[in-house]
Amino acid sequence: MIREKYARLAYHRFPRTTARYLGDQRVDSVPPEEGLPDFHPPPPPQEDPYCLDDAPPNLGYLVCMQGGILFVYDNKKMLERQEPHSLPYPDLETYTVDMSHILALITDGPTKTYCHRRLNFLESKFSLHEMLNEMSEFKELKSNPHRDFYNVRKVDTHIHAAACMNQKHLLRFIKHTYKTEPDRTVAEKRGRKITLRQVFDSLHMDPYDLTVDSLDVHAGRQTFHRFDKFNSKYNPVGASELRDLYLKTENYLGGEYFARMVKEVARELEESKYQYSEPRLSIYGRNPKEWPKLARWFIQHKVYSPNMRWIIQVPRIYDIFRSKNLLPSFGKMLENIFLPLFEATINPQDHRELHLFLKYVTGFDSVDDESKHSDHMFSDKSPNPDIWTSEQNPPYSYYLYYMYANIMVLNNLRRERGLSTFLFRPHCGESGSITHLVSAFLTADNISHGLLLKKSPVLQYLYYLAQIPIAMSPLSNNSLFLEYSKNPLREFLHKGLHVSLSTDDPMQFHYTKEALMEEYAIAAQVWKLSTCDLCEIARNSVLQSGLSHQEKQKFLGQNYYKEGPEGNDIRKTNVAQIRMAFRYETLCNELSFLSDAMKSEEITALTK
Amino acid sequence: MIREKYARLAYHRFPRTTARYLGDQRVDSVPPEEGLPDFHPPPPPQEDPYCLDDAPPNLGYLVCMQGGILFVYDNKKMLERQEPHSLPYPDLETYTVDMSHILALITDGPTKTYCHRRLNFLESKFSLHEMLNEMSEFKELKSNPHRDFYNVRKVDTHIHAAACMNQKHLLRFIKHTYKTEPDRTVAEKRGRKITLRQVFDSLHMDPYDLTVDSLDVHAGRQTFHRFDKFNSKYNPVGASELRDLYLKTENYLGGEYFARMVKEVARELEESKYQYSEPRLSIYGRNPKEWPKLARWFIQHKVYSPNMRWIIQVPRIYDIFRSKNLLPSFGKMLENIFLPLFEATINPQDHRELHLFLKYVTGFDSVDDESKHSDHMFSDKSPNPDIWTSEQNPPYSYYLYYMYANIMVLNNLRRERGLSTFLFRPHCGESGSITHLVSAFLTADNISHGLLLKKSPVLQYLYYLAQIPIAMSPLSNNSLFLEYSKNPLREFLHKGLHVSLSTDDPMQFHYTKEALMEEYAIAAQVWKLSTCDLCEIARNSVLQSGLSHQEKQKFLGQNYYKEGPEGNDIRKTNVAQIRMAFRYETLCNELSFLSDAMKSEEITALTK
Repeated sequence: MIREKYARLAYHRFPRTTARYLGDQRVDSVPPEEGLPDFHPPPPPQEDPYCLDDAPPNLGYLVCMQGGILFVYDNKKMLERQEPHSLPYPDLETYTVDMSHILALITDGPTKTYCHRRLNFLESKFSLHEMLNEMSEFKELKSNPHRDFYNVRKVDTHIHAAACMNQKHLLRFIKHTYKTEPDRTVAEKRGRKITLRQVFDSLHMDPYDLTVDSLDVHAGRQTFHRFDKFNSKYNPVGASELRDLYLKTENYLGGEYFARMVKEVARELEESKYQYSEPRLSIYGRNPKEWPKLARWFIQHKVYSPNMRWIIQVPRIYDIFRSKNLLPSFGKMLENIFLPLFEATINPQDHRELHLFLKYVTGFDSVDDESKHSDHMFSDKSPNPDIWTSEQNPPYSYYLYYMYANIMVLNNLRRERGLSTFLFRPHCGESGSITHLVSAFLTADNISHGLLLKKSPVLQYLYYLAQIPIAMSPLSNNSLFLEYSKNPLREFLHKGLHVSLSTDDPMQFHYTKEALMEEYAIAAQVWKLSTCDLCEIARNSVLQSGLSHQEKQKFLGQNYYKEGPEGNDIRKTNVAQIRMAFRYETLCNELSFLSDAMKSEEITALTK
Repeated sequence: MIREKYARLAYHRFPRTTARYLGDQRVDSVPPEEGLPDFHPPPPPQEDPYCLDDAPPNLGYLVCMQGGILFVYDNKKMLERQEPHSLPYPDLETYTVDMSHILALITDGPTKTYCHRRLNFLESKFSLHEMLNEMSEFKELKSNPHRDFYNVRKVDTHIHAAACMNQKHLLRFIKHTYKTEPDRTVAEKRGRKITLRQVFDSLHMDPYDLTVDSLDVHAGRQTFHRFDKFNSKYNPVGASELRDLYLKTENYLGGEYFARMVKEVARELEESKYQYSEPRLSIYGRNPKEWPKLARWFIQHKVYSPNMRWIIQVPRIYDIFRSKNLLPSFGKMLENIFLPLFEATINPQDHRELHLFLKYVTGFDSVDDESKHSDHMFSDKSPNPDIWTSEQNPPYSYYLYYMYANIMVLNNLRRERGLSTFLFRPHCGESGSITHLVSAFLTADNISHGLLLKKSPVLQYLYYLAQIPIAMSPLSNNSLFLEYSKNPLREFLHKGLHVSLSTDDPMQFHYTKEALMEEYAIAAQVWKLSTCDLCEIARNSVLQSGLSHQEKQKFLGQNYYKEGPEGNDIRKTNVAQIRMAFRYETLCNELSFLSDAMKSEEITALTK
């Protein structure tokens, strides 16, 4: 119920079935298609995806940051009176109470036992289902015309744009630029213009001789449990000059090389027809100009692709900026990240490029090494972002709360205007403290990784009951945190958690041209997944993604938003109805146990 | 020494280093490039690969099968006198003595202990090497210009032509033929011509609706330890009609569809530039016409590709043919397999097509389910093939001996004429009895699978000392006989056995377009292989293959046939010299232990 409240406030998703069993009466008063988040459908083929003409008028609202959250005022007078526009605003005190409630729950002995047993039961139940129905499922799929694993839609739900090309692709691109335009000016250093040839000369390198070995962007055995070493793999040949030149949106060339490579990746997706991807682009929050620059980059280089939807990742590196004196406080960082979005939402006509770009952005991610420890414990006594001026980095949960809070207000403001909303989809549970998964349980629509659910039966069971989508990347984990064979993906899938497969960083982890297919193939081979398993994962990935309602209807079926077998169209998804029925019955069964227990507790309380 | 003898007789390969330590004086009297098997280099690009003009004249020899072996006579008089042409002929008695010698060796307690310990030592030694030198190896590779894992040559050393396309490719091809030529006559049944449309009508199927699921050629969990079920996966949609039409060289269309698909696979290899493959085509031995028909198919449909070299596989299914009364004896089957080759060798002018086709054939394979048990024990008391008329199938070792014997005579005859020779490369040690690996130790140049070496330390050590190449297919094993994580490939590689990676049957096992890359990628990911490991495997695959001396020089370096680091050209192979030196020193060390022991035994014997 706690998660439901937070999800509803932010236009995140919460399963109706679970809500119903929790006794939520509202759920049946709203038609299922209304509670969905709002994403722009891709423009029709004949339409220009870069058309800047349809910006709605200026509402004239004013925005002001207070305590790390942006408040919207109808006009100057209301601002002076401190009477914000009627949008829901989060309350830190309630939040910390909710948070400590869940924290208490996950360490409660009997609850742990209960969840542990239910999870074991779920796993055994699936084994039984598999033994009994495997052949019937396959028979259903065999008689399903024209649809198989290759032509069901799959979304790469977690991928970083700066690593979305594989190592061979980057190598080929670097060689190509050097061959075709060695004398082009590509950088400027202390007023001196530098050509591409000079860049490589200064590195004492002839790109002709460059290989994937000398490029050295692939994660090897050396990166295991070394996120720091992994991060430096973003520098081709260990040279940050090349990262700036080839993998950044801001540089002397206006990010042209990066845009060209991303577009090449997009063309391959379009050719494959059935593969989509949700690449992450960075906004750092150093200054408010980042947003218009990013929008400019997107439009100028025509980066739009119908097979890509964009996510904005915010690295949790306030401490670095603060120590370099680039920021006065954490509040300023939040303001730099969110204020431009509020302004573009209130007055799109004056922020046409950003307004357009935001049509193709569907969510936010929070990224960095989770294993870094923070000394601070987030509570309602914590200094608010405006007065967080120390060089210390705020903890993970602090970041998550303030990102969620601003996204929530922003979503409500945008919804009011009929504009698209955003999902909060942080990296979570890759490593570090288990409490990260508690923060995300409240604040996130869905998460990336979730490995550490392995360690907490209560959280795992809660993630199951709330069907929180988890984008898993076992090949990435294999290089960084957890051996492939120990990855919990198979176990999570069996129990019925809502998992999808994603690549994270093809540049660092993958060998073949088709990274997402490599990911599916290896999972299928190592874990002996059936076609039905694979298609269930693919269906999950579309549901999890920021693809629009219209696309989801096209890819999964008219009623995709309904839960249980009626939401499945086997002709589109190639998931057996037997499987769907099993999943639905199993979830209802778990939920009815809980609701029965709640009722009997109420009765006990009444009769006492 | 026993293996060396058999290898020498058949123009198979034996490592000079090992021979030298065994005290073989001859080894240094012959330059290393002379002992090599002889394969035709591919014709230069301007030359017609189907030119039938260069057939050498008829030698007029006569050939006659006696006791399962073909004997060559200079003329009729010599035949009457039973004085065969001076070629080495195998002697069954010696062979069975040699065989039982090795059988005794592998069960000898002290030998087992010794080999087990040496193998453990080899594994630990490699771990140590890895810990100490991993970074130095990688440094060597990083400074190696223009060569990386992607552009070193790799040969798919074990692949069946009838399954060389992946399932999606086959599906697309079937749909394409149906779309473009539904009214073409593609079969004839009891005198009635049948069109493609009628074929599918009779199967109650519209190819438009066909999917990889309904095609059902992929191995799933159902095939584990069920080679019989696996074999039926060669029938698309379970229909043998479609197998005949699409995957056979002999049918109403003269195998046109199969040829077209194989050529599409070949074009992809050519485009990839660095990938080669050695597909197996079947000769069954039902009648002597199979050979000219196969050669016809090859030439008529222009199946030649510079990136493919052909292997002939002979299924061990005499019992099936005998029970259908298609063959009177096992000897006849051998005659059908080998006589046409002897005739084409003696009189190429009258067998121009077969003579040409044989230029591109580099070896023989022996295939079938090894786990099938035979009641017969092969010995010098066994009935010879001429009088093997029962319906019982001869055991594995009987097949191997008679194939080896005929290949050996054939190779000597061809060598005399300056024609190319063949390698015997049977499937061996995939399952079944450990004695299969003993037979192959004597008779094979190299083997496919070799999984069961895991179970016999003595044989494993012998295969190591003799550096017998092993084409391993862990993905195939994973579907049929052994889970991926338990596959011994990584362990074999570490110990220094000569292993390569191969796909076996992309149609049944692989998901992506590039099956061989999928195989390498999964091995690299699951076992965390380094670039140097991968490139060592790739180098092994070229060495193991039937590519010509000229190609191997081009792909591996001028001195590829030399052993140890001097045989390695890092600029071509991307294998670190540190690794090569380690392998060579380690092998020499093992061999010197043995030769020292032999010497001290001789001294003890002398002083007694």
